[in-house]
Amino acid sequence: MAFPYKKMDEADFAYIRSVTAPDRVMVGDEIASEYYHDEMPNYGTFPPELYVEVVDKYEISKIMAYCNGKNIPVVVRGAGTGLAGGSNCKYGGVMLSIMRMNKIDPVDHKNQTITCQPGALLLDVQAAASAEGLFYPPDPGEKTATIGGNVITNAGGMKAVRYGLTRDFVRCIEAVLPDGSIERFSSNVVKNTTGYDIKDLVIGSEGTLCILTEVTLKLLPAPNCTCTLVMPFHSLEECADMVPKVLELPFVPTAIEFLERELIDIVERNLNKPLPVKEGEAVLIVMYDASSQSELDAAVEAAAEAALENGAIDCAIANTPERAASVWEVRGGILEGMKADSVSQEECDVVVPRSKIAQYVKDAKRIALSHGIRVEPCGHCGDGNIHTELLRGPEMTDEEWESATHACLVELYALSKELGGQLSGEHGIGNGRLEYLKEFVGPRMIKLYKAVKLAFDENLILNPGKIVEFNE
Amino acid sequence: MAFPYKKMDEADFAYIRSVTAPDRVMVGDEIASEYYHDEMPNYGTFPPELYVEVVDKYEISKIMAYCNGKNIPVVVRGAGTGLAGGSNCKYGGVMLSIMRMNKIDPVDHKNQTITCQPGALLLDVQAAASAEGLFYPPDPGEKTATIGGNVITNAGGMKAVRYGLTRDFVRCIEAVLPDGSIERFSSNVVKNTTGYDIKDLVIGSEGTLCILTEVTLKLLPAPNCTCTLVMPFHSLEECADMVPKVLELPFVPTAIEFLERELIDIVERNLNKPLPVKEGEAVLIVMYDASSQSELDAAVEAAAEAALENGAIDCAIANTPERAASVWEVRGGILEGMKADSVSQEECDVVVPRSKIAQYVKDAKRIALSHGIRVEPCGHCGDGNIHTELLRGPEMTDEEWESATHACLVELYALSKELGGQLSGEHGIGNGRLEYLKEFVGPRMIKLYKAVKLAFDENLILNPGKIVEFNE
Repeated sequence: MAFPYKKMDEADFAYIRSVTAPDRVMVGDEIASEYYHDEMPNYGTFPPELYVEVVDKYEISKIMAYCNGKNIPVVVRGAGTGLAGGSNCKYGGVMLSIMRMNKIDPVDHKNQTITCQPGALLLDVQAAASAEGLFYPPDPGEKTATIGGNVITNAGGMKAVRYGLTRDFVRCIEAVLPDGSIERFSSNVVKNTTGYDIKDLVIGSEGTLCILTEVTLKLLPAPNCTCTLVMPFHSLEECADMVPKVLELPFVPTAIEFLERELIDIVERNLNKPLPVKEGEAVLIVMYDASSQSELDAAVEAAAEAALENGAIDCAIANTPERAASVWEVRGGILEGMKADSVSQEECDVVVPRSKIAQYVKDAKRIALSHGIRVEPCGHCGDGNIHTELLRGPEMTDEEWESATHACLVELYALSKELGGQLSGEHGIGNGRLEYLKEFVGPRMIKLYKAVKLAFDENLILNPGKIVEFNE
Repeated sequence: MAFPYKKMDEADFAYIRSVTAPDRVMVGDEIASEYYHDEMPNYGTFPPELYVEVVDKYEISKIMAYCNGKNIPVVVRGAGTGLAGGSNCKYGGVMLSIMRMNKIDPVDHKNQTITCQPGALLLDVQAAASAEGLFYPPDPGEKTATIGGNVITNAGGMKAVRYGLTRDFVRCIEAVLPDGSIERFSSNVVKNTTGYDIKDLVIGSEGTLCILTEVTLKLLPAPNCTCTLVMPFHSLEECADMVPKVLELPFVPTAIEFLERELIDIVERNLNKPLPVKEGEAVLIVMYDASSQSELDAAVEAAAEAALENGAIDCAIANTPERAASVWEVRGGILEGMKADSVSQEECDVVVPRSKIAQYVKDAKRIALSHGIRVEPCGHCGDGNIHTELLRGPEMTDEEWESATHACLVELYALSKELGGQLSGEHGIGNGRLEYLKEFVGPRMIKLYKAVKLAFDENLILNPGKIVEFNE
């Protein structure tokens, strides 16, 4: 068994230098403290014993084979933008950065795909597709994340309503298994029933099953035109009830987001970004992409009509890039606005059935209030993924904040479960949500997760203590 | 270890009768021989020791807990329409029919989903959605298959180009694990990163990991209008080269199929179903769905223009249901036509990158010819899934046919691999393609598949000897 892991010594350092390059290896205090954690230091701050920047899969293979034999844990790090404490060295060992593996191959037009190394940034992949008239739709907020990080967490984002998640765009994965083997999961094909679907299991596995070395992604023709509608409602319920009405129209929207008035005010107050629509307690923002102006016009007309039929006070049509930007800037400013409006924040990104959004939001506010915490749930109404940022008031002590957030999260996750939802829509479990996951899915699923983990990583070498914890 | 399994005795029969009902249990010779195999008896004909028709998940749970303790294998059977020898009782034991578990819940409009038991037929699910103005897009040829069978094999079909596979429509799975536990994988939510993605691993696992008891499926608004285009080309290469041209237009086609002239002739000669288009050595059939007539017109116009620009002799537009039906009847008649035109047939459903379709077809014909076998590859050009039916001529002896098909399949799968393809696009591995899979994916992947199988089914109780074989 893995625990305790081997403490790395000079011989280990020397080996890793010998299979990579001395100037790409750092040890001990040479390692910058930013590598001790991801974007959520409160989910764990752990110094790696060795930090190495690899340049190809063969280096990764050698490091894994060595560490697997020596009982040294390895954690992969991309851009470090994760929100779950997924890429910290919880048990020390090697932090393996794939940021130098950022090559993007030319677009494959015949297969409408793009192949890249895991360290390529999302924004660079999007730009490479766009330069060739194509479109990589997954659009999580953090554009400087790596594509490898996007795949390994199954990143979502606002356009999931129409286009789906990162998962839906991954054709093929090349990866190094914990024993150092290099394997491919599927290939550049559209469908596949050749053995178990390892590819989809690896997507979203938060770096605990294998190390990505190359991904091939599906692209789409870029849409020609786009339009955003803003629908203010008198109440959150009316706003949430509008979502299924939008979805039953014969035009699939790209994004459906909602904002309550208080959040709109927070963004205006703190960032001076006003929403062009002043009415309404709750606002639905609906975006359409289309391949032609006539299709777009038909979609917009149908949606506006449906909105007014279903209680919208108005329906503002942001049909120029500038107008649309002024709307999306408010949506994009929420996190920053909330940060300016509170001492600190805690993450919660449950996903519930679309039919339960209004109920979740109401109950979440009540729960938070009972613990002396403010929440302003918002987010991806079209897919039920409600970001419920817990906001700390200036009056709370550290202890109060810690115990209140814990108690509040316990209840929020229980609420999500009761409503038929899930614990995390897109941020994942990492190290930050282990205890909540255990409660959420129950002992039989944890047993299954552990068996799946062991099927890939029998020595628990790769990113140990994330998603499931064996050391207890 | 499982092998040899327990031979079932009267006590076992009595237990299963006691937890189900005597009139739903048959043993020994009472069991109809159609239950000895699926649609491919040549992939295995095995009598079950006991056949039981279950009515709910609790019965399944009790049977699994019992058999898991007693070392008795269990195989689930739906409509028996599989094409891989996946649902035969290779090691005897229990055949568990889920055909009485065919309840379909009312459509959930707010979530745009439908929930049903695994024994519901695909055509009934499609009809239930349609009756409510919604649309369940996956459309494999066999409409009398169960929805459970569709999910557990990740069924594809012609409309995968636009809509994707069965996988893309599964929101939630409820299942019984081999130890009898009842668990849910995901829920009625649009996205989820809560632990490992067990749901997607189970989809396509051919009944080897767990037993489905309920599935929740995503629906879409039904498209309002549809049109089919027939594009004849002078050569297969021109026809195949047209596929990426179609896909780079800003309209996503619903289906792209191809037929070579010889196949068209086979269907006309044997079934008296002529294709309305007489020209061309190879014909591309492209279908569009749209939410409005203007969108459809724009798509059809763009595709027709692109066809003529890229060497099509003509572009016939089948814009009435009758005209479209006359085209799709030819496509739908291929298997029947080939059956009438040959003594027997062997299946091969490789999938290759779309860019390699023409090369695959040419090489496949050459390979088959070298073994004295005729093939007429055809199929889902839009997704590279080329059905390569091997046709037996009247002159071949049983031995010649058997050894020639084996040698031919070895080379066809090697060809697919060389071209970056996969062994099976939609039919799966079952019992019929075990040895080819082993060669195709290599020993490290087989080891991983076995570990995944054991993570779910440590006693190898559920559908043993399919996808991977431990008894060797």
